[in-house]
Amino acid sequence: MTGSENVPQSEKSDNANSSQDDRPQDPLPQDPLPRGFRFAGVTCGIKPSGNPDLSLIVSDQPVVAAGVYTQNQVVAAPVILSRNRTPSETIRAVVTNSGNANACTGDQGMQDATEMCKLVAETVGCQPENVLVMSTGIIGQHLPMDCIRNGIRDAHQQIDPTLAGFLRSAEAIRTTDKTRKTVTAQIDVGQRRFRVAAMAKGAGMIAPNMATMLSCMLTDAPLTADMAQQSLRQAAKNSFNRVSVDGHTSTNDTLLLMSSGQGTSLNASELQIFQQELTKVAIKLAKQLVADGEGALHVMAIRIEGAEDEAAAETIARTVAASPLVKTAVTGSDPNWGRIVSAAGYANAQISPEKTSLQICGITIYRDGAPVPFDEPALSEKMKSSPEVPIVLRVGQGSGTVEYWSSDLTTSYVEFNSEYTT
Amino acid sequence: MTGSENVPQSEKSDNANSSQDDRPQDPLPQDPLPRGFRFAGVTCGIKPSGNPDLSLIVSDQPVVAAGVYTQNQVVAAPVILSRNRTPSETIRAVVTNSGNANACTGDQGMQDATEMCKLVAETVGCQPENVLVMSTGIIGQHLPMDCIRNGIRDAHQQIDPTLAGFLRSAEAIRTTDKTRKTVTAQIDVGQRRFRVAAMAKGAGMIAPNMATMLSCMLTDAPLTADMAQQSLRQAAKNSFNRVSVDGHTSTNDTLLLMSSGQGTSLNASELQIFQQELTKVAIKLAKQLVADGEGALHVMAIRIEGAEDEAAAETIARTVAASPLVKTAVTGSDPNWGRIVSAAGYANAQISPEKTSLQICGITIYRDGAPVPFDEPALSEKMKSSPEVPIVLRVGQGSGTVEYWSSDLTTSYVEFNSEYTT
Repeated sequence: MTGSENVPQSEKSDNANSSQDDRPQDPLPQDPLPRGFRFAGVTCGIKPSGNPDLSLIVSDQPVVAAGVYTQNQVVAAPVILSRNRTPSETIRAVVTNSGNANACTGDQGMQDATEMCKLVAETVGCQPENVLVMSTGIIGQHLPMDCIRNGIRDAHQQIDPTLAGFLRSAEAIRTTDKTRKTVTAQIDVGQRRFRVAAMAKGAGMIAPNMATMLSCMLTDAPLTADMAQQSLRQAAKNSFNRVSVDGHTSTNDTLLLMSSGQGTSLNASELQIFQQELTKVAIKLAKQLVADGEGALHVMAIRIEGAEDEAAAETIARTVAASPLVKTAVTGSDPNWGRIVSAAGYANAQISPEKTSLQICGITIYRDGAPVPFDEPALSEKMKSSPEVPIVLRVGQGSGTVEYWSSDLTTSYVEFNSEYTT
Repeated sequence: MTGSENVPQSEKSDNANSSQDDRPQDPLPQDPLPRGFRFAGVTCGIKPSGNPDLSLIVSDQPVVAAGVYTQNQVVAAPVILSRNRTPSETIRAVVTNSGNANACTGDQGMQDATEMCKLVAETVGCQPENVLVMSTGIIGQHLPMDCIRNGIRDAHQQIDPTLAGFLRSAEAIRTTDKTRKTVTAQIDVGQRRFRVAAMAKGAGMIAPNMATMLSCMLTDAPLTADMAQQSLRQAAKNSFNRVSVDGHTSTNDTLLLMSSGQGTSLNASELQIFQQELTKVAIKLAKQLVADGEGALHVMAIRIEGAEDEAAAETIARTVAASPLVKTAVTGSDPNWGRIVSAAGYANAQISPEKTSLQICGITIYRDGAPVPFDEPALSEKMKSSPEVPIVLRVGQGSGTVEYWSSDLTTSYVEFNSEYTT
């Protein structure tokens, strides 16, 4: 049911997944990285903790770049800048700071985001318009620009094309993430092999004032700007747009795809293969976000089947995933079909109650609108021991199907988010 | 900002509000009850606790009745029956059981709900079609009809027109409610004085498998069925439809209005006065539900101003009220404007970020899109000591305004709902 159930041959070399240890040298081959990018991650002093907080990705040549951004009407300054610059075929760098979202910061915020791009452009040797910028962290405070200036200088001095550099870059975009989040993959299209390396941070707006999901995906598959934009939209639709922790859309969400690929662009059928594999990478990354959702004990892997169409299925999945009663049932390993079925019933999409059936962890417990006897303690035990709890809800006989991932809701989430933080 | 800020003269005698003590004789005058109704609340054995679980309200004559019901597509058997019977001018009784929702119970559930009405009709001396039925409690289990049969017989024997009877009836519809919920009021329309007495239980679908908000409002104002239906819709729109605990719409929600009034029906302007006062009663009752939301420490009284229209204001209020980050900020007495403003920004209604301003407990902390310096510890202390925390969010310059009430989110909610219950 989930992407990990059907790992294609080409992804067997995935090995750059994040871990909690922060050894400077990861024992990983350099091979998974697409050619043409260099990376840095440094501490510039935004975070009081002294953890890395400035990331720089530079391409050797102008590259194709696409972006997908938050739908919130309140958008941070860096989102406004980057959104205006994608899609593009002339991007040279992405600079990201963590620890400060540069959101709700007015004209000064726009000036600061603009200066970040200008500083990077000067060191890289390009125009400010060729630089993308992302920020994540506390809302409503101005960026400490002295730190940023020093950080960009330091980052440029340390920039390096190795996996270690990539991982340092991924490290520097974390805020309250427990782990660094990366995925790499190889994609075989006909006789050609391409690489994808992707990093992300956060899950929804999970932390006190710490807004944002950020992700940057890199590839060496040759794409036009339009092809990159289309591929990224497709990947986002089935991954980052189908996960939730607390349903709170941040002011800074940004997902970028950059391609350094040279030579003939992919043809239509090759592009289709590329998109499918890019989507799988995005799903893996999105699931890492959910698994790291604040206080999460389980990932709920929700599959809706039989809805009127895909949009209806997504509406139902989103509603089930957001219900605190469904979330807390999973927290408590309680196969509580009443909560799941009734959540589907109030979603803003048609269901057929008499054709509604439910499986949890592969066990059918509700069929065609009626409860099915099952071994409750055994199923509860199974839920308890499953980091990912599969929930399959059939709501009728339509063709609409989606997969959606959400975290459960624990007392840790409430404790963390109700601490006094202003 | 809330209904209680402006209590009209006619409501000064409100005095039947619930309390946690269960003395058999409430020291209250009999005066607040509308004439023509008799009440009973008995223990019939549905609840393992032995608490009262069957309520009966009987009118001496056929009365006008209106109903508003759950919008969930999965509806309980009693909802289907009652919904088909309102509005009406020939209702004689309402029977309610607690401890079992008779939801997701198929044909047997319909037979059981039908039999409940038939049994009441036989004792009262009317047709089954003149009886309304409500159920609340666990989903997916068949009603213990032997208990119900005995309960209806006992209730009819004990039925009485006093306030004590009314309170026993309100007592018997509780499930996990910490308190019995009642409101009474007198409404002066011209030279005539009418009475309203109302009871309710539950708040959203707050408890494990314990679905349902139920409420029954009684009056002796002379109304036609259409007038009653219109008044009830209006009252519900501004009260029960503007509260949330966990946003989970139950399968059983039912709100009834019954009028025993004799003589000339209210004219148009009198009806308007009646509706306004009925709405105030409904708001008081709805706020009792929120205050009793599971684990709730505070009621968030959210007022949205300046939205494009009332529907837009309601969408924004609902989104802010549902955000776990906003709820936990209130739990922690944290005047965290970033969470509130960003929640409004992702609501599915237009806002003007540069015209957005926010007050908490009367203190402006965000004005026209920018933070305003304020004494944070003082405001936090004020939030902490306020059972009801007023949040006023202006999102533009439109005419759309609503008031909305929600509970905060505490670890107690999560603990209660993640206990194993199936």
